[in-house]
Amino acid sequence: MTPFKLTEELILEIEQLIEDQNNSRLESLLEEVHYADVAEIIDELNEEQATYLIKLLDSDKTSDVLTELDEDVREAILNNLSAKEIAEELEELDTDDAADIVGELPKEIIQEVISEIEDREHAQDIVDLLRYDENSAGGLMAKELVKVRESWNVLTCVKEMRAQAENVTRVHSIYVVDDDDKLKGRLSLKDLLTTSTKSHISDIYIPKVDSVNVNEDPEEVAKIMSKYDLEAIPVVDEMGRLVGRITIDDIVDVIKEEAEKDYQLAAGISQDVEADDSIWDLTRARLPWLFLGLVGGVGAAAIMGGFEDMIREHAILFFFTPLIAAMAGNVGVQSSAIIVQGLANDDLKGSVGNRLIKEMLLAALNGVILAAVLLLFTWAYKGNFLTALAISISLIVVIIVAGLIGTFIPLFLDKREIDPAIATGPFITTSNDIFGILIYFWIAKMVLGI
Amino acid sequence: MTPFKLTEELILEIEQLIEDQNNSRLESLLEEVHYADVAEIIDELNEEQATYLIKLLDSDKTSDVLTELDEDVREAILNNLSAKEIAEELEELDTDDAADIVGELPKEIIQEVISEIEDREHAQDIVDLLRYDENSAGGLMAKELVKVRESWNVLTCVKEMRAQAENVTRVHSIYVVDDDDKLKGRLSLKDLLTTSTKSHISDIYIPKVDSVNVNEDPEEVAKIMSKYDLEAIPVVDEMGRLVGRITIDDIVDVIKEEAEKDYQLAAGISQDVEADDSIWDLTRARLPWLFLGLVGGVGAAAIMGGFEDMIREHAILFFFTPLIAAMAGNVGVQSSAIIVQGLANDDLKGSVGNRLIKEMLLAALNGVILAAVLLLFTWAYKGNFLTALAISISLIVVIIVAGLIGTFIPLFLDKREIDPAIATGPFITTSNDIFGILIYFWIAKMVLGI
Repeated sequence: MTPFKLTEELILEIEQLIEDQNNSRLESLLEEVHYADVAEIIDELNEEQATYLIKLLDSDKTSDVLTELDEDVREAILNNLSAKEIAEELEELDTDDAADIVGELPKEIIQEVISEIEDREHAQDIVDLLRYDENSAGGLMAKELVKVRESWNVLTCVKEMRAQAENVTRVHSIYVVDDDDKLKGRLSLKDLLTTSTKSHISDIYIPKVDSVNVNEDPEEVAKIMSKYDLEAIPVVDEMGRLVGRITIDDIVDVIKEEAEKDYQLAAGISQDVEADDSIWDLTRARLPWLFLGLVGGVGAAAIMGGFEDMIREHAILFFFTPLIAAMAGNVGVQSSAIIVQGLANDDLKGSVGNRLIKEMLLAALNGVILAAVLLLFTWAYKGNFLTALAISISLIVVIIVAGLIGTFIPLFLDKREIDPAIATGPFITTSNDIFGILIYFWIAKMVLGI
Repeated sequence: MTPFKLTEELILEIEQLIEDQNNSRLESLLEEVHYADVAEIIDELNEEQATYLIKLLDSDKTSDVLTELDEDVREAILNNLSAKEIAEELEELDTDDAADIVGELPKEIIQEVISEIEDREHAQDIVDLLRYDENSAGGLMAKELVKVRESWNVLTCVKEMRAQAENVTRVHSIYVVDDDDKLKGRLSLKDLLTTSTKSHISDIYIPKVDSVNVNEDPEEVAKIMSKYDLEAIPVVDEMGRLVGRITIDDIVDVIKEEAEKDYQLAAGISQDVEADDSIWDLTRARLPWLFLGLVGGVGAAAIMGGFEDMIREHAILFFFTPLIAAMAGNVGVQSSAIIVQGLANDDLKGSVGNRLIKEMLLAALNGVILAAVLLLFTWAYKGNFLTALAISISLIVVIIVAGLIGTFIPLFLDKREIDPAIATGPFITTSNDIFGILIYFWIAKMVLGI
């Protein structure tokens, strides 16, 4: 298969069908389309058309569609639905997805929506999930899981499991709890089926099971699940009670979002934005970093102003400031990126001191190679060996300092429990620009004996 | 649980135990440790110690450990194992992992290793997988899956399935094929269990099943599986025959690697490196981009040299070149990052023209705000309104051009089927530095009427 490709023609056709209120054609056209693709279509429609489609299609499909929509589109559609209609959609969803949608609703209608949900246990589960911080294992987990008590025998267990499994899309594991709901272990389906129906669960379950605490950071959960190749992990509260389950598809989303966030931070974009967001949203995400760059540039200009007396005899020094700034920025970004990734993957070993020494050697090696090339070039080009030497020596020192700053800042931020990813971007570039230019003129002045 | 934390003490203890050849203590110490964690330990040992541990522990554990090791550590260990020992490890692994390891072996020993594998079917599957490009769905898939023929009845089916399922760690789906092995659909376990044993599979299977072609790009497979929330997807060859299966845990690795690669490219690191790689590897990954920056800087210096006659009266213009270069670079990186992510997520709609117009408006908005701030500052600081105006107008134009270049280049690369991620980094920064400075002096010259 190739993934569904949204075409201009399909959108136009659907818009026309909506205008004609040709419901039967719309239904048959969209019946075979996956909900994730229907969501892509609806993202392209206007609010009225989108609401029309959601009201038209079956709620077992539209509920899934809702979870896949862009947040602003979903908000607009939900605004046009009654509390009862929203409750019908929630009824069809797993508790984690339902809770995410409820969390986005205006506070004043939440209670009404919840009261319209017919399955009271489902409603209770959704309300339970609302209590957890979005940015924790609790905010990620679903209540749907299969659990059995260690005191049961196999017969009871199988009966209970059948009832529970109806609400669970994919049974990854059967969890075993004690009478206080404390997680004790897991059960293999195979053992369950090959044992006498009178056996007690306590005699056949596997007491070893990985779990995470409700307060665990989603990134940490993602690390655990991907490191140990888990497709689902149970979530326990502070008393060790089993309260939910996180599945690998949620973790895939966490990993992707985290990667996108780090990438955007490295590029100097401070909020989660997409190419199709409004110019205003994009400006808010981009302007702060540009402003930082502006301040840095003004700082650099002020520094150069301080060396103005050199401009008559050594104008060439001023021509190379963009080169110095660019090299300082590039080296800083390179070294910080490697540290940020190492921290994210937990594979930085050894002390900060060793790491700085290594980066210094690395930067010195790169610096010497680049400076040698630059020396030959500027010497040939301008004919003044001493000036060329001054520029080249400065370049080496600037590269070393930039590498050290790029290595140190993310390590420092991480120690302070600040996301080191903010370091790889305009922050490093700007500070390295300023330091770079300052060091450059200072060394040049010494070498030229001014 | 918290993930296993590797400590200096544990490594020292294990090194001591290896030196003492205290095998029983080593075995009991590592028995409860997950294979992914054992791999972390072994990554820290020297070659001799690592080989000792691999030979000591059971091959059902060490085979999994091998798949998790750093590539260079694995290579060193395999070098110290006999063909028979390697074959024993491969015997324990799923075909996809086994094929990955065989693919890394020196060519001259592959045949010997394969001939030592006792399970001939397993050996055949591994050899089959070796034929596929590492960077394709075929290179990612495993041969382990449960498949039944549509011509069978339920009874035969259940019998065959039992035998097949023994080799499959997780049965995600039962695939249905015809007598030519062509993928026809899938079967739900529930239907299988609730139907008469005499029914034919052809009457009960679900004819709708997503699949990917063996030649499909792994990133495309990742997109399909994560979009449609699939935990496994069957792989078919050019004739529609079922040849393998890809599971979500492999896809998690693809997504992570892709994200790391894009992040490193954006930071100007051209190969997959880690903080703990050698200085030489790191230099090879970093130096090419720095060299590009050097060429850019020399270009900028040459341009400034061309405007040398302005230096006496308008030295201040030269002081602001790092600012102009930095802003051009930052804006270019920001706009290219958003395009690169949009392309990766397939959510760029509309024409290239519209996108450029949007970026132009966005850049103009940011540019005007930043230029206004800069105008007030430079005017107050230097007291020359015309110079301040010249710098500010240039800044607006430079930001707009930088935004357009940052938007256009990744779109252009993508059309040419080159990974657009290489655009967000030194490539954009360097070209924008040069264009920025050229435009800056040219406009300043016009405004100042020189």
